[in-house]
Amino acid sequence: MDTTIELRSDNAAGVAPEILAAVAAAGEGSALAYGGDEWTARLSERVAEVFEHPDARVFPVISGTAANAIGLSAMCPPWGSVLCHDTAHVLRNECGATSMFAGGAVMHGLTGDSYKLAPESVQIAFEATRWGDPHHSQPAVLSLTCPTDHGTVYTPSEVAALVDVAGEHGLRVHMDGARIANALAGVGCTPAELTWRAGVDVVSLGATKNGALSTDAIVCFDTDIAEQLVYRVKRAGHVASKMRFQSAQLDAYLTDGLWLRLAGTANAAMTVLAAGLRQLGVELLNEPQANMVFARFPAPGVRRLEEVGLLFYAMDDEVVRFVTSFQTTDADAREAVRRIGQALS
Amino acid sequence: MDTTIELRSDNAAGVAPEILAAVAAAGEGSALAYGGDEWTARLSERVAEVFEHPDARVFPVISGTAANAIGLSAMCPPWGSVLCHDTAHVLRNECGATSMFAGGAVMHGLTGDSYKLAPESVQIAFEATRWGDPHHSQPAVLSLTCPTDHGTVYTPSEVAALVDVAGEHGLRVHMDGARIANALAGVGCTPAELTWRAGVDVVSLGATKNGALSTDAIVCFDTDIAEQLVYRVKRAGHVASKMRFQSAQLDAYLTDGLWLRLAGTANAAMTVLAAGLRQLGVELLNEPQANMVFARFPAPGVRRLEEVGLLFYAMDDEVVRFVTSFQTTDADAREAVRRIGQALS
Amino acid sequence: MDTTIELRSDNAAGVAPEILAAVAAAGEGSALAYGGDEWTARLSERVAEVFEHPDARVFPVISGTAANAIGLSAMCPPWGSVLCHDTAHVLRNECGATSMFAGGAVMHGLTGDSYKLAPESVQIAFEATRWGDPHHSQPAVLSLTCPTDHGTVYTPSEVAALVDVAGEHGLRVHMDGARIANALAGVGCTPAELTWRAGVDVVSLGATKNGALSTDAIVCFDTDIAEQLVYRVKRAGHVASKMRFQSAQLDAYLTDGLWLRLAGTANAAMTVLAAGLRQLGVELLNEPQANMVFARFPAPGVRRLEEVGLLFYAMDDEVVRFVTSFQTTDADAREAVRRIGQALS
Amino acid sequence: MDTTIELRSDNAAGVAPEILAAVAAAGEGSALAYGGDEWTARLSERVAEVFEHPDARVFPVISGTAANAIGLSAMCPPWGSVLCHDTAHVLRNECGATSMFAGGAVMHGLTGDSYKLAPESVQIAFEATRWGDPHHSQPAVLSLTCPTDHGTVYTPSEVAALVDVAGEHGLRVHMDGARIANALAGVGCTPAELTWRAGVDVVSLGATKNGALSTDAIVCFDTDIAEQLVYRVKRAGHVASKMRFQSAQLDAYLTDGLWLRLAGTANAAMTVLAAGLRQLGVELLNEPQANMVFARFPAPGVRRLEEVGLLFYAMDDEVVRFVTSFQTTDADAREAVRRIGQALS
Repeated sequence: MDTTIELRSDNAAGVAPEILAAVAAAGEGSALAYGGDEWTARLSERVAEVFEHPDARVFPVISGTAANAIGLSAMCPPWGSVLCHDTAHVLRNECGATSMFAGGAVMHGLTGDSYKLAPESVQIAFEATRWGDPHHSQPAVLSLTCPTDHGTVYTPSEVAALVDVAGEHGLRVHMDGARIANALAGVGCTPAELTWRAGVDVVSLGATKNGALSTDAIVCFDTDIAEQLVYRVKRAGHVASKMRFQSAQLDAYLTDGLWLRLAGTANAAMTVLAAGLRQLGVELLNEPQANMVFARFPAPGVRRLEEVGLLFYAMDDEVVRFVTSFQTTDADAREAVRRIGQALS
Repeated sequence: MDTTIELRSDNAAGVAPEILAAVAAAGEGSALAYGGDEWTARLSERVAEVFEHPDARVFPVISGTAANAIGLSAMCPPWGSVLCHDTAHVLRNECGATSMFAGGAVMHGLTGDSYKLAPESVQIAFEATRWGDPHHSQPAVLSLTCPTDHGTVYTPSEVAALVDVAGEHGLRVHMDGARIANALAGVGCTPAELTWRAGVDVVSLGATKNGALSTDAIVCFDTDIAEQLVYRVKRAGHVASKMRFQSAQLDAYLTDGLWLRLAGTANAAMTVLAAGLRQLGVELLNEPQANMVFARFPAPGVRRLEEVGLLFYAMDDEVVRFVTSFQTTDADAREAVRRIGQALS
Repeated sequence: MDTTIELRSDNAAGVAPEILAAVAAAGEGSALAYGGDEWTARLSERVAEVFEHPDARVFPVISGTAANAIGLSAMCPPWGSVLCHDTAHVLRNECGATSMFAGGAVMHGLTGDSYKLAPESVQIAFEATRWGDPHHSQPAVLSLTCPTDHGTVYTPSEVAALVDVAGEHGLRVHMDGARIANALAGVGCTPAELTWRAGVDVVSLGATKNGALSTDAIVCFDTDIAEQLVYRVKRAGHVASKMRFQSAQLDAYLTDGLWLRLAGTANAAMTVLAAGLRQLGVELLNEPQANMVFARFPAPGVRRLEEVGLLFYAMDDEVVRFVTSFQTTDADAREAVRRIGQALS
Repeated sequence: MDTTIELRSDNAAGVAPEILAAVAAAGEGSALAYGGDEWTARLSERVAEVFEHPDARVFPVISGTAANAIGLSAMCPPWGSVLCHDTAHVLRNECGATSMFAGGAVMHGLTGDSYKLAPESVQIAFEATRWGDPHHSQPAVLSLTCPTDHGTVYTPSEVAALVDVAGEHGLRVHMDGARIANALAGVGCTPAELTWRAGVDVVSLGATKNGALSTDAIVCFDTDIAEQLVYRVKRAGHVASKMRFQSAQLDAYLTDGLWLRLAGTANAAMTVLAAGLRQLGVELLNEPQANMVFARFPAPGVRRLEEVGLLFYAMDDEVVRFVTSFQTTDADAREAVRRIGQALS
């Protein structure tokens, strides 16, 4: 095998050239620190335009965990709970960050097919809640991961159905959009349709996994929450003094649909890969609606996949995760299928 | 005036070319996320070498506030207090970040000449403490800002004298080194001499103000604190998935003395500027031992300084702060002096 | 029906005469505040004697939630998790108190028959943990509720088996003993056997539900945890200035086996009640090993129970909870059975 | 000396007979836990009546620290600051409790004569604040201690003057009324006049220091804050299951002016004591407007005071604090003066 094929994670990828160029350009002169610069001003306008929301506010942060936990902390009182799918990143993979930032708020994992929260599950959780009884954490936020950590995607109408249920008890709605561009590219709707038009208040806008260098962001459609975030982001240490370099990345990312093109490339490669896997008779554990697939390879399949030069995550002895990125070409995907076929034979 | 001269802050400067090049180079291939990459491995070795300490651990974070607050949270129990100078950034400018990350620990501002904490002040604070009485926050950490936020610098022996006093009651010692390279360049000692050899346990290693693009770091010389930081940095959302881009910056920064050269340029420009100000008869409020000076301009002096094309911070009606950066040339400094002279005449 | 029979909860009961007398006696003269009094000193000795542990430390607090949450906060780092049964009070009924006091630590509910945590469940949780990976909360404490919130009891050997598993990964062990006297009376072992001899580090010692006026306590067998509690209890506002009145209650409670006699009365009444229910053919959902039973009454049974003058909690349309207290006589229990029989007929 | 005279603290006193009787009476039957009892209902009405405010809400807690810290946590956002006098108990004596409960909010000590906050000090603090700048904790609450920890008292008009200044920036106002009955008895105004009519939103209502057995309370005049307190008090572990015993104490305390009579006794004894000290030529460090005085006794005066059977706190080598309580008779005060005279001769 001459070269390995990177399918471990989209955050193993490099930087999109347009984004690196934007960073380099931003560094030429001096500029006011802490967001008082022209790139950050331009980013604010860009976000309002791309999300078609005049009051949208954007807060660059260094990670998706920061975007999720700080965003949620501005939506959930300390005595509240965040309802999310039982497999959500905010529940499983962030080391209690939301509970810390939200002063001891708790998270409740609920069920739903295809790794997506089901309105019925939320309804059941509501019925089990003793509202107003201070012995019990009060559901305050619904957090949707889109795409999910298992590569499935909510449609705008699925989001709206959940928001409807949540609204019965006044819950706020958060979307963990670490890979939201892949969802948009997959579903083919607008950013507004998937978010605030469907009732979402705050989005964790992922960029790092899809070509950015060093930034994600919180996008907020609610004025009261945004006012809190001004302070919450700062005291979390996420207001970079040279914020212009994050703003320049995000501005380039959202300009002329770059983010959707990058995600489209990743999704297309996944489509090729998934089709190939199916053709090989490999069992897929999720419908690959974005840039991620989980596949089962009866032992000793997993080890043999390593031997043919594929980089991936083994979830256990039999299940592997493949993720494509903006740097994965269709040719890479086809070559990966070829090697998998070889490994299986 | 054809062009303005940037003297507002060193974090208004751009990026050092060596650092931008390092970032670009790191982006060429794919690499494991969350620090499992070769740049981060190399950075670890670099820090151990530069600080001459085999167990030194480094944690890249996005801001000095993050480095300070997360670092301190691993050194101070929730019922403890952090002793620092009354003008310290950790006390005055971080919106309670340390109290949040440290579970409600508090900060006590103490006095000392030249904006530096005096051993006598610490001693007095100790004597006023009811040790072991749970009604009172227990002093647990000494935090030194070096250079101070007023441009003065602790020598290694001044640090050691404070550490001596702190050690009587078992306090840990933290150094806010947002501009530590300027201190090192000013004092002419080694990183080891100013930090762990003098008794410092944790350093907030500034890089952004001195030519980096988007990173600072926590450097830790204590194994127990480092073990905590593994988790504390993550749940604060400061473990970037593409950590290699921060590590590459820090590695370039610390390689072949780049950080000290960049800081030396800033300090040299400040020396020129300060000498010029003195020659003009301007009152300086601090001994400019690094890259910062506070000067008094009887009204309407401040407004006239703006008219001659200088960018600076007005602290009040009469006092201005000038900060030089790695991009400030001696010629810039001379030209600034010329314009100030013109404004005063 | 002339009088109602109180079976809602043991905390609906009044105060044991011995305890009220102790409070009255303690109030006669003046005494140093905040625990510097003779009653608190005597309590410390009493706890050491009753638990047969020379280093046992006792911290009176006003509620079981306080005892649990503050105790756990001294055992679990902010990035840790507390493993407990999925029905545990600390998980379900304390509004996130532990997450708040422990700086954002989280709780994981596990399974086990009879509402008791099974060693196998803990083992499975351990195997699913990515130890040392900061993306994941690290299991740090095992919390056992004894008796459980469903009236079942761990034996010393069951506790020891769980402690054994927990010890493999260095977890601390906490016992929520809100009704521990009922467990001891039920099992017939010594306080030491059920707690520290089986490996428990900290006990939430309930007293209010079993005849005290206004106090529970944290009992701690570990010196390091106790040192933390000195401060943690104070800053939680749980160090009463007139602590002697809590200490006097607890001292009386633990003297000459009063706590066990009170609990024995409650347990005996439950035995009568449960036997009667069985004789009536009522389905019991738990083995009533202490002073609590859950029973199913096909609708409209629950409403009819109210009509015959029983006070109880309806868990849902068909399931009711009966709890006996130190004030429930065997005659009360027999009369309750008689009325239930009447309601069912 | 046959007997010692207790002048250490009012929380060293015993229990008022009326309050002990109320507790005993409340314990006779069974009652719903967690405040669902008739005593708590009656207390709510009593507080509304005594404070002449129909929406006043009362939350019993076990200590003044709890009342202060939990109350403030519902008034101050995590990024806010609490302004108080530099000698305030909330700042000096509560081990960071407010910072913990308020998620890292900070406290700023300000100056003012007679240990009372001066409107000018608040004004200066406001002018030094960079409002809206997230680098800086934003003043959010004014906390007044009345009486102060040095025995001086705010008049209603002094409170109103401070509230006026605070209102300019929308701050909430908290009163630490650990000894508020002594203030009311001293000033001779109504509870309403000293609190909400003067603009106070939340009062920490002390009872323990003035004859209660085991309770203080938060009294809240603001609906939004009260709604938060429902949850905040619970998760702090301060909702006692047998709340009726705290409610019964508070109800008795506030009925028929008992609290003011008890405080009046303490104040009267202090008046006798202070007059006697002045007659002896002893320097008093505060105007004893409630039940506390600080007096200077040139060494070796302090030691000799101990020899004549007085119990008091020595603040340092020369200064002692005397506190009278509801149990201190005028005869006690006169005898204390006689002994002091003897010690000084």
